[in-house]
Amino acid sequence: MTFNYRLPVNIIFGCGTAAQAGAVTRPYGTKALIVTGTSSAKRSGLYEKVRGSLEEAGVNSLLFDRVTQNPLTTTAMEGAEAAKASGCDVVVAIGGGSIMDCAKAIAFLAVTDGDINDYIFDRKTSDKALPLVLIPTTCGTGSEGNGIAVLTNPETGDKKSLRGEAVIAKASIVDPECMMTMPPKVLAAVGFDAFCHCMEAYTARKAQPITDAMALYAMELIAEVLPELYRGSRDVEKWEKLSVASTIGGMVISQAGVTLAHGMEHPVSGLRDVVHGQGLAALTPVIVEASWRGDEEKFARISRILGGETAADCTRRVRALLEEIDLNVTLSRLGITEGDVAWMAENCMKVSAGPVANNPVTFTQDEIAEIYRKAL
Amino acid sequence: MTFNYRLPVNIIFGCGTAAQAGAVTRPYGTKALIVTGTSSAKRSGLYEKVRGSLEEAGVNSLLFDRVTQNPLTTTAMEGAEAAKASGCDVVVAIGGGSIMDCAKAIAFLAVTDGDINDYIFDRKTSDKALPLVLIPTTCGTGSEGNGIAVLTNPETGDKKSLRGEAVIAKASIVDPECMMTMPPKVLAAVGFDAFCHCMEAYTARKAQPITDAMALYAMELIAEVLPELYRGSRDVEKWEKLSVASTIGGMVISQAGVTLAHGMEHPVSGLRDVVHGQGLAALTPVIVEASWRGDEEKFARISRILGGETAADCTRRVRALLEEIDLNVTLSRLGITEGDVAWMAENCMKVSAGPVANNPVTFTQDEIAEIYRKAL
Repeated sequence: MTFNYRLPVNIIFGCGTAAQAGAVTRPYGTKALIVTGTSSAKRSGLYEKVRGSLEEAGVNSLLFDRVTQNPLTTTAMEGAEAAKASGCDVVVAIGGGSIMDCAKAIAFLAVTDGDINDYIFDRKTSDKALPLVLIPTTCGTGSEGNGIAVLTNPETGDKKSLRGEAVIAKASIVDPECMMTMPPKVLAAVGFDAFCHCMEAYTARKAQPITDAMALYAMELIAEVLPELYRGSRDVEKWEKLSVASTIGGMVISQAGVTLAHGMEHPVSGLRDVVHGQGLAALTPVIVEASWRGDEEKFARISRILGGETAADCTRRVRALLEEIDLNVTLSRLGITEGDVAWMAENCMKVSAGPVANNPVTFTQDEIAEIYRKAL
Repeated sequence: MTFNYRLPVNIIFGCGTAAQAGAVTRPYGTKALIVTGTSSAKRSGLYEKVRGSLEEAGVNSLLFDRVTQNPLTTTAMEGAEAAKASGCDVVVAIGGGSIMDCAKAIAFLAVTDGDINDYIFDRKTSDKALPLVLIPTTCGTGSEGNGIAVLTNPETGDKKSLRGEAVIAKASIVDPECMMTMPPKVLAAVGFDAFCHCMEAYTARKAQPITDAMALYAMELIAEVLPELYRGSRDVEKWEKLSVASTIGGMVISQAGVTLAHGMEHPVSGLRDVVHGQGLAALTPVIVEASWRGDEEKFARISRILGGETAADCTRRVRALLEEIDLNVTLSRLGITEGDVAWMAENCMKVSAGPVANNPVTFTQDEIAEIYRKAL
């Protein structure tokens, strides 16, 4: 066993901590680009709260609110231009994974010349970015716990991650109260994404004891609270559990990586702008069924966390969890057709070589195409 | 629940990784002060291996080999003088907790003016130190996983920690092969220290989910392998498990803190130069018995890890673990007398206010004196 564990996150966790945004940001700059989506952070009042807190701490801000689901490399470039033009020295994100990931890329591009695709495909490297403060409003992506930013190139459809310590947030403010405004349908998708992060990191070839410990614990938390929260529970302690589990999910994939479900989902949402968590829900049971023999001990442990017993039982248990949160979807229902399979399988080998190799069972392009077909 | 998780460690783990010392150190400097104890790193050949690896990577070195068990503030000052006089720009430690802790203080003092005791007692602060590379040779202290350096002031007997991100190693090379030369008696003491780190962090008032996850996992590993390793097993996989568990123990106390056993042990070894793990072994069962009602759920979980069932059973289970590794000692057998109790109880309130407050049950000075008496 050899591994490297290196993850300089700074997680500030707790109900009400969003109000500390100003004090947390101030050590890193005096002019913030606040990155949000087109509406929800404003509707919920969180944007105003954070903006006010920054102002009180002596941090001016400029709003960049053009980030959409499955954020585009081109949007990140626009944001970086805005940051540069107005002399922003820190980037504050308020939102879900798309927004945090785009904010990371904006912070990176604001001090890095050239084409972001070169950095995404490792043709160039840089270890610089504006300091980042992230305030997640969904508990799923875990982007607040790592140096990963997934972006889609609108020209090629390539959905792939920019990675590096430069885009690990100087501080992430994880305030469970900010999550409680999520609609149930969003919660189901992001909650399952968090579960997948933990399950994939735990069964990854690059898994290591420290991430195993965290992933197991977080899967237990998610299995315990997600269905109840989906049914509308306002129990703060349960929201805290899901929030911390989601952050842990982000942390573990940063060290152990994701595996095939994430690897195969990126072509799906890169091609058809599918909701990431729904794409995962369509693919994961089929992939678990094809992969559990690659690590029976670990899949058995996941199965037990979900109320099952054996590795062979794991697929059924994952489906049962999906049923409980009304997320038992197929790729067809998400708008994917048989005609998309060949492109997705080929694109998966291109953008997800790492995750494909990190899966406990390694599949060829043809086998991956077959998995897509089974998930239709 | 509110917490901050911030721990920028960089753990390079695996058999044979000590040979990477040069490559790992080179980014941080070109002249290293190598800190060791008086003999064992030289006897085992590890010192020569590391020195050679540094040289090959273009890092000159100077040896400082005067560190003893329960390292003294005065030794750290000597080491810092040596580092300054010879222009060292990086500190490399090879050894157990005493050596790593002393190396941390040396790195700190090499760039910090004034009396180290002011920093230990929080009368002054500084966030600077020379970069540190730590190579542990015992699996117990976990010093490689945190920014804590425990030192003893020979004038006052105060044994207390210097803390801060400045003394978190830039890289820690955890090579299980370096542990395998430990004599069984040393292994028992350091292995139990590691278990206490996890147990204390897990039951601490400052416990948080991320450290709970790691502490539980590491306790399982230690309970699984420590007795067998003590009996002489050379199974590399088991040594790996203990080594990683020990590093995790260091990580979790850095965020959640230690509690009463560590808090009460420091006066013991500060006064009589007792082996830390033996002092813990004498105190821990008495403290668990006095504390388990403070968190029945968590002590029950520890009990189950040790083969028991309930929180009430935890003390007996801890004693059973100690029996298995021939560490069921008393303070009397370690040279402590009834006449020492009053000083130790008073000193505990002075040097261990944090750990005392972090225990699931809070005890007065008189009650702490009574616990010392029960452990005699």
